[in-house]
Amino acid sequence: MIESDKSAREAARQAKADSRALAVISVEIRNAALAKIADALTENSVAIAEANSKDLEAAAAAGLPGPIIKRLAFDEKKLKDAALGLREMIGLSDPLGRKLLRRELDADLLLEQITCPIGVIGVIFESRPDALVQIAALCLKSGNAAILKGGSEAANTNRVLYEIIHKAGTEAGLPGAFLTLLESRSEISELLSCHEEVDLIIPRGSNEFVRYIMDHSEIPVMGHADGICHVYVDKGADINKAVNIILDSKTQYVAVCNAVETILVHQDAANELIEPLMEALAEKDVEVRGCERTMQIHSGILPATKEDYLTEYLDYIVSVKIVDDTDEAIDHINTYGSHHTDAIVTEDETAASQFMLGVDSAGVYQNCSTRFADGFRYGFGAEVGVSTGKLHARGPVGLDGLVTYKYQLYGNGNLVADYAEGRREFHFKDL
Amino acid sequence: MIESDKSAREAARQAKADSRALAVISVEIRNAALAKIADALTENSVAIAEANSKDLEAAAAAGLPGPIIKRLAFDEKKLKDAALGLREMIGLSDPLGRKLLRRELDADLLLEQITCPIGVIGVIFESRPDALVQIAALCLKSGNAAILKGGSEAANTNRVLYEIIHKAGTEAGLPGAFLTLLESRSEISELLSCHEEVDLIIPRGSNEFVRYIMDHSEIPVMGHADGICHVYVDKGADINKAVNIILDSKTQYVAVCNAVETILVHQDAANELIEPLMEALAEKDVEVRGCERTMQIHSGILPATKEDYLTEYLDYIVSVKIVDDTDEAIDHINTYGSHHTDAIVTEDETAASQFMLGVDSAGVYQNCSTRFADGFRYGFGAEVGVSTGKLHARGPVGLDGLVTYKYQLYGNGNLVADYAEGRREFHFKDL
Repeated sequence: MIESDKSAREAARQAKADSRALAVISVEIRNAALAKIADALTENSVAIAEANSKDLEAAAAAGLPGPIIKRLAFDEKKLKDAALGLREMIGLSDPLGRKLLRRELDADLLLEQITCPIGVIGVIFESRPDALVQIAALCLKSGNAAILKGGSEAANTNRVLYEIIHKAGTEAGLPGAFLTLLESRSEISELLSCHEEVDLIIPRGSNEFVRYIMDHSEIPVMGHADGICHVYVDKGADINKAVNIILDSKTQYVAVCNAVETILVHQDAANELIEPLMEALAEKDVEVRGCERTMQIHSGILPATKEDYLTEYLDYIVSVKIVDDTDEAIDHINTYGSHHTDAIVTEDETAASQFMLGVDSAGVYQNCSTRFADGFRYGFGAEVGVSTGKLHARGPVGLDGLVTYKYQLYGNGNLVADYAEGRREFHFKDL
Repeated sequence: MIESDKSAREAARQAKADSRALAVISVEIRNAALAKIADALTENSVAIAEANSKDLEAAAAAGLPGPIIKRLAFDEKKLKDAALGLREMIGLSDPLGRKLLRRELDADLLLEQITCPIGVIGVIFESRPDALVQIAALCLKSGNAAILKGGSEAANTNRVLYEIIHKAGTEAGLPGAFLTLLESRSEISELLSCHEEVDLIIPRGSNEFVRYIMDHSEIPVMGHADGICHVYVDKGADINKAVNIILDSKTQYVAVCNAVETILVHQDAANELIEPLMEALAEKDVEVRGCERTMQIHSGILPATKEDYLTEYLDYIVSVKIVDDTDEAIDHINTYGSHHTDAIVTEDETAASQFMLGVDSAGVYQNCSTRFADGFRYGFGAEVGVSTGKLHARGPVGLDGLVTYKYQLYGNGNLVADYAEGRREFHFKDL
């Protein structure tokens, strides 16, 4: 069942072949498979716990850092959440076969633009085993064949999860290669060369890793390298809201792409904001690096350099810069940011609308934490990743980002010559 | 005005800077600019005709083939059509600011997914000067800065068209780099290296040219290389319809990507179809290459090889293959085709729906000519190209293919910690 004895290329070919069958499988079967997988995960909780223990023991023996071990753990609560997530995905409407356009071109010529699967999607992800379940479910629901490569720290947990999901899925009527697990790191580069078979690669991991993938494949890559997010405190801000939003954006979880890295402050808000903000950040042990104007208001902090504005700290560090106005804030974000998620704190609707329109990012927020940039929090059920690219899908990518569309045209012997030579005329009427 | 004294990189930087301003320009100004450009083209018809004469004379002197000269001609009718196209584009609804999703995540937390421009788009196109007007108009209406490089045969016509459009556009309030014309071939490779500034490259031209562009840029490329389109005549076909559809698909215009290259015939339709089809194709001087079974029914034609099925003839040549059933037809198309546009001729709805679902192409048609695959014929006003990729846009690409979206989130001080720690709960309600 595990494809470790096969090459990545063979696995990709099989996935491509089976993706044709997957594309025409009804939503009833896809949903039944999700239900069966949820049941199977619950029924096999002991085997999953045993496999996870092995990974956790190996990680402890190898002296891996605490946060990695925490992400690696797949306890009863995470298993319950994973099964619940699968059941919730059943309730989401079918992403396939949606009519995006239905237009009469002529009395007997009907154009429909309908959604369909992308085909074969390769996902290379980090150590969290819950990601395997989520990604498998998203690809299944959207009719795509998925080839997964998880982190080696989670090898035992991933293998047992894969075996359970694969068995339940095929028993529900899915083709064998609806889901493939690659187990060795060397298969990544082979997978990246399968541009004839694989339609999309989604890498999840460190900046360096994502950049490596982007630079080493002809296959389109969707995802993000940096997550340099900003909170801009406008002169029209409610200062208390601003402090709380910054704290949440920075410290609710520091090691994630949607945590804030640079705070921009309107010069007219600085005197009121800086002191309570510094106090609140100090309480959470956040190191602050400030621009010259910030240092004039609050001494005893390190200076922020241009390098700081280009850095994703992923740590208890933040840079603070005072700007002249909203325009300068927008310029700073568009120049130094990573087009991920940026927030303005203001009660002034003019400044807000200027910011929401002018900032060229996947997420632009008013008066809330950048940490909301997440597929679950957007109501997508789960996410396969966050895209900072502008083509295809942007921001958290759920089911809708895993489909493409085709144009279907229904005629009655219609010929282009009749229209080109004036015997017939188009009338465009959206139905 | 012309950027020939600037490098492509400088032009790209300027376009990137001005794309920020373009993104926030109202649809009223964008439409007013389109109207002003249409007026200016009409007013400058003499200058355009003079420039076009120079190109036509040079082309004749250089002994360019007839079809190229025909495409190069920009006569009064083409100018009138171009101006009309611009006015029709004014009537199309604004592709920007459309709300694709509007969802309440919580009582005071509103998520909106709204369309916005991609940014800077580079289009490298063939000799037709009308393409310049169409592409400029599509990019303008969708709020993108465009960098164009046209064919050298049309240099004089392109330059005067560009000058007229640029002057009218900037007078209407657009930033200077809303449209840039590159004039030397050497600037193409420089443009391809501007991945920091250019968001998308759209190449239009020969297969080799498009492949070269795809292989030589880190910038996402949208378009198509081959156009290997099929017509499949099912056993449930109306034979008369089938013959007419094949003739139109093959001969209405042979040198285009949406012309048919391979005819597939259900074995049960072959005896009835082959003779009248051969007769009709012979009348139009179409050379036929057949599979063994076809040659058994109709002798005296050349044999079709695997190479034929992989060839875009762009000429009065077609291959014919008899298949066992609809499944084999679908398999052939998915294996040998280019995912462009493929048609089934049948009155049998079961076979039709199997084909429409199973064929993995941008366009799947029932009972009409493959030549309908075109932005104008789809009611898009014009097209910037046809995409055979599956990501972002597929098929003829009009305004909707030139926009992306961003997620806007409006809160009231909402913090992720409140949701993560159970003090608040999401309710997802689409508005």
